[in-house]
Amino acid sequence: MKPTRATLADVARLAGVSLGSASRALSVPDQVKPQTLANVQRAVEQLGYVRNGAAQALASRKTHTVAAIYPTLNNPIYADSIQALQQTLWGYGYQLLIASHEYKPARELEVLRAILERGVDGLVLVGTDHPPEVFELTRQYDLPYVLTWSVDETQYPHCVGFSNFEAAYALARRIVGFGHRRVAMCGGSTFGNERVRARQAGTRAALREAGLDLRPEWIVEAPFTFEGGRQALRELWDGEARPSVVICGTDLQAIGLLDECRAKRIRVPEDLSVTGFDDIEQARLTQPPLTTVRVPSLEIGTRAARHLMALIDGKDGDDEIVLDAPVVERGTLAKPADLRRSAREQ
Amino acid sequence: MKPTRATLADVARLAGVSLGSASRALSVPDQVKPQTLANVQRAVEQLGYVRNGAAQALASRKTHTVAAIYPTLNNPIYADSIQALQQTLWGYGYQLLIASHEYKPARELEVLRAILERGVDGLVLVGTDHPPEVFELTRQYDLPYVLTWSVDETQYPHCVGFSNFEAAYALARRIVGFGHRRVAMCGGSTFGNERVRARQAGTRAALREAGLDLRPEWIVEAPFTFEGGRQALRELWDGEARPSVVICGTDLQAIGLLDECRAKRIRVPEDLSVTGFDDIEQARLTQPPLTTVRVPSLEIGTRAARHLMALIDGKDGDDEIVLDAPVVERGTLAKPADLRRSAREQ
Repeated sequence: MKPTRATLADVARLAGVSLGSASRALSVPDQVKPQTLANVQRAVEQLGYVRNGAAQALASRKTHTVAAIYPTLNNPIYADSIQALQQTLWGYGYQLLIASHEYKPARELEVLRAILERGVDGLVLVGTDHPPEVFELTRQYDLPYVLTWSVDETQYPHCVGFSNFEAAYALARRIVGFGHRRVAMCGGSTFGNERVRARQAGTRAALREAGLDLRPEWIVEAPFTFEGGRQALRELWDGEARPSVVICGTDLQAIGLLDECRAKRIRVPEDLSVTGFDDIEQARLTQPPLTTVRVPSLEIGTRAARHLMALIDGKDGDDEIVLDAPVVERGTLAKPADLRRSAREQ
Repeated sequence: MKPTRATLADVARLAGVSLGSASRALSVPDQVKPQTLANVQRAVEQLGYVRNGAAQALASRKTHTVAAIYPTLNNPIYADSIQALQQTLWGYGYQLLIASHEYKPARELEVLRAILERGVDGLVLVGTDHPPEVFELTRQYDLPYVLTWSVDETQYPHCVGFSNFEAAYALARRIVGFGHRRVAMCGGSTFGNERVRARQAGTRAALREAGLDLRPEWIVEAPFTFEGGRQALRELWDGEARPSVVICGTDLQAIGLLDECRAKRIRVPEDLSVTGFDDIEQARLTQPPLTTVRVPSLEIGTRAARHLMALIDGKDGDDEIVLDAPVVERGTLAKPADLRRSAREQ
């Protein structure tokens, strides 16, 4: 026979009390007789009975566990941020449980329900755009939470992130400054993702200032992966007119797109400029190294952990934390070919 | 006043029953009066009261949640496997909670405790070497679990992985076959990691067959990251004698090592051969593309999920699942320079 985990019924039996009394002793100890409480406590110790999350929460109101839900784990930018979040939480004596929803809001809601039923002290989410039920559930559970990555499209004060609008605007200004007029964007779906929307809006704003616009056929929706970047290049390069620059939504897309350029013998930046977003470690390893936007992923993780700890401790004074996400110029963004030619012809 | 989460006491009050009766109605419904049960159920619905994990487990014995603990999330090979694990679990209507211990056995034990206190139906671990308390706790909780990645150093039947010994042996045979006699290894710590030990043993076995051995100064312990690979190359290249090939423990290390070679103007494979382990997507993107071992990460995730579901359903008949991890020959492994020279001189 396999040894099995002690149940509340085992505790009640050993303590010589009813199941109801054992339950009350654990959940509302001040409402049971001292002798009952002592018997139950002795049985709990003898059996190594571990109380479930919610009962423990009723007693101590602390589980010393925090959950974080990410869009995906298949992007090093999130893995880096999770590591920083976790290191900081460990410093506070907290454990971190992680989940991912693969960019599906309905999945996010499902896993949040599972997390709430398990019981945690706080929650970290990515982005500001979530199904309304997510916010209803955190209210219902009175669960402190921090929104990370983005400060776009929100009125909620506990955001730790950067302005995706401003970052995309600054990058597009740089691109326009090089003389590009045929600008394509490779991004993900805007559904449930204010980051993608804010970056499109920021890019448009910079282009409009230069009298330009994003052509609908040059806005490609592709997964945020290497393969997404490859797909996007094939789609853009096979079109009637070709862009002079592709703004990618992630470095992963940009690296995949660069690889597809190599396969198609498209020279970067001579024939096509490419920019990324995130500044993952691999962005420095491409040939030429990738021009991108540096997302402060480690700082987001660290600051989110501290902010959440303050909220759990009942401190409510902290404002939104807005970090910098600067453009990092490397080798994949240069003057478009037509401008270089006319410069040589002069 | 903030709306707060309904407690069991709220349910009892609204149902007009004692706290003990409310608790019993939720945990042992067949032992309470039908009228009490109906009143409590109505109150639960009205208040949106969500039962905690353990109470639910007492009633249904199912939380429909599984946990998986990984060494790190900062390696795409694990992220890929997690994604496949999760997709398969979703198909069964299960949620996945993930944790990482950053290669620290004590951290693994801590987060496992937090997970067990929350309540889950099953567990996925990486590797066969864990603190004894990990196995004691799974026994105590009668928690089904699957060990993944490795079938080395274990008697436990529910392993889904590959032989790290055999994979390393096959790779080293290939290396010896090219004529290499000065073989270095860049790996991680052997502490709590049977994969590293099995790979060293497999490499040694192949070298011994060729009358060779691993020099102690050519076994470098470095983090499984880009930076770890860079460190290892600096250490090996600054030594008195230089190896002709470096066997890396991960593709990340190999990619970092290749980058450091570029910085030092060491030609690969002309001056130095390099091999990786994992076959992550980036392994095809280096110049030259990386010779490595293909870890069946997606299949591990998928098969582990199915195996765990069978265990949770009380089916115990499945044997160890041993998958292939073949050598993938690309461009970074070739004849050592001295052999190429002597071939030209002939």
